[in-house]
Amino acid sequence: MDCNQWERSQDSPIAYRQSRLVYVCDSCKTKIQHVADLLLCYDARPVDTRSLSTCGESFEKCRDTIIARTKGLAILVHELQYLVRLSKDEEVGRGLIELCNLVVALVECSSHAGYLAALEMPGSKPAQPGSVERYKVSVLQQEIEQHCSTLRALPLPDLSPSLLSGIAQGVSSNLKGLSELCGLAGEGKTGGFARDQFKLSLKGTACCASAFLACVKELRALPSEETRSRCVVFSSPLVQSVRALVGFATEAQFLGRPAQLPPDARSVHSNIVEGARNAVSCCLLFVQWIRDVALLVDSGTKAPNVKDQLKSLACAVSDRCDLLSQVLRDSDSLNFLNPWGSYPLN
Amino acid sequence: MDCNQWERSQDSPIAYRQSRLVYVCDSCKTKIQHVADLLLCYDARPVDTRSLSTCGESFEKCRDTIIARTKGLAILVHELQYLVRLSKDEEVGRGLIELCNLVVALVECSSHAGYLAALEMPGSKPAQPGSVERYKVSVLQQEIEQHCSTLRALPLPDLSPSLLSGIAQGVSSNLKGLSELCGLAGEGKTGGFARDQFKLSLKGTACCASAFLACVKELRALPSEETRSRCVVFSSPLVQSVRALVGFATEAQFLGRPAQLPPDARSVHSNIVEGARNAVSCCLLFVQWIRDVALLVDSGTKAPNVKDQLKSLACAVSDRCDLLSQVLRDSDSLNFLNPWGSYPLN
Repeated sequence: MDCNQWERSQDSPIAYRQSRLVYVCDSCKTKIQHVADLLLCYDARPVDTRSLSTCGESFEKCRDTIIARTKGLAILVHELQYLVRLSKDEEVGRGLIELCNLVVALVECSSHAGYLAALEMPGSKPAQPGSVERYKVSVLQQEIEQHCSTLRALPLPDLSPSLLSGIAQGVSSNLKGLSELCGLAGEGKTGGFARDQFKLSLKGTACCASAFLACVKELRALPSEETRSRCVVFSSPLVQSVRALVGFATEAQFLGRPAQLPPDARSVHSNIVEGARNAVSCCLLFVQWIRDVALLVDSGTKAPNVKDQLKSLACAVSDRCDLLSQVLRDSDSLNFLNPWGSYPLN
Repeated sequence: MDCNQWERSQDSPIAYRQSRLVYVCDSCKTKIQHVADLLLCYDARPVDTRSLSTCGESFEKCRDTIIARTKGLAILVHELQYLVRLSKDEEVGRGLIELCNLVVALVECSSHAGYLAALEMPGSKPAQPGSVERYKVSVLQQEIEQHCSTLRALPLPDLSPSLLSGIAQGVSSNLKGLSELCGLAGEGKTGGFARDQFKLSLKGTACCASAFLACVKELRALPSEETRSRCVVFSSPLVQSVRALVGFATEAQFLGRPAQLPPDARSVHSNIVEGARNAVSCCLLFVQWIRDVALLVDSGTKAPNVKDQLKSLACAVSDRCDLLSQVLRDSDSLNFLNPWGSYPLN
């Protein structure tokens, strides 16, 4: 999942503004939360994504990649707290996007590592792929929603022609991705209803996208609050049609089966997933805190205890990252040792 | 606007249930509120609807029709309070649908009467029609949303094959109506964007409707909570695409201009509209009250003070109806007498 699209909003001629920092924080939080909800859950499945090509297919490679990434994350968080204190908003914005990409890659790799580690335990049966991969289609859906929300969230002067082109291209290419994935899933089905429903849903998304993109084009030609609000109105059917398509594509019948894990293997999986969840939730708190500071500065209020709060959150991220690395290093003894207690996982 | 579609839900083999009464109350409230918001507002425009053919074109005919309808409404409300006390739920359901039709017709006629009365005052300039009539397209939108919400609101056993056919036919025919009204509006425009946008939006609604109707067909063939929930999922893009289409069609550029009224004429218009609003809000309270009683009975609680509450609300409806009739009878002196005080109108 690529978060660099938000950076394009920085090409606008006006100065970098606090409201844009709030927007970047919100985008980061939404994306991280979405990926964590999808991948750090009870179901153990392999993760198929570009960022994993660097992890390779073995647990050991995944583990080493994760450990390297947690170190990078700890350094980045400490840099960011320093930049926030200096009010270097533009650098903070770029750093947040980097943080988001790093956390997403970490989540993907941790989820995959959890699957691989659990599979090494005796009695585990591997996941069986279905005709749709939930993570892939959900990420495409989330990217489309993100593009649409940009039109609502940013002030009009920030919606520069090149940003609008980026939105239009982003929506089109993500829809193309969805169309390929769901088209294949529909072809795989011999049952009449599913195949037809995929076709009808894809046609629906395509039509809604055409109506939306025409509005974006008009907004580019005649920027005003009216043309912008028309884009927002026409983004709703697009978002809803994509949700319906992805909702249909991720019905149980298309998803294959997650790994079947005996209790020991389940515990190995849970420990790694829980370790990643803890690190992620600290990162989300850190981003939320930067957002709160940006809002306070916007409203002219002095942020209280900035230094202490920042430092303690950055340290918490480091600590959780260390713990995750430790869990992975101790993977052999994972089924005996549960450093997270026995939290129920959803 | 026709509310009889809800009655079709009564052909299901199971006994008439309280939950269905709650559903009928909610549908009535939504429809009445929607029509009142559209027609009993500051803008003075003529109302073009089938129910007005009985009013004719003169203020006097409108006035006599309204007075007759307010009498009918007062009688109906008294009958209903009697039926509620006897717990005759099926008859209450039918009476509510009748009440809804009557109130909607009353609102339409009152709005038209307000326009005609104001226009008789010196200095008033008539409304100019646009290429879209807001009320007509909004009613079609509301009907589609109502059909879709039925699938979510009723328990599965109530979704009989004939009710599902009714929903499918209702959605199709209302979409056809929208397509005709908006297609005409698009043709009237020589500007490239508006014409194309109407075409694109209509295509979007048609595609979303196809995907939705296929799900309804599947629900009819294989009734289950899964197939029903799929209908609900696919109703969202349909509802949103219709909202976007109607949102576009009701942009100021397509709506013509409301009547231009000097202060005296404005006051005549306001008095009639306010009189109708007062009667309508009493009817809404009455329906809400029947809903509350139905919920209490559902949960096994005894409804306290049923008799007194019912009686006082039915009397309030009668009183407000009498006041509305009085305002219309005194129409000559309307600009001197304001029985409603000077409430600001939105």
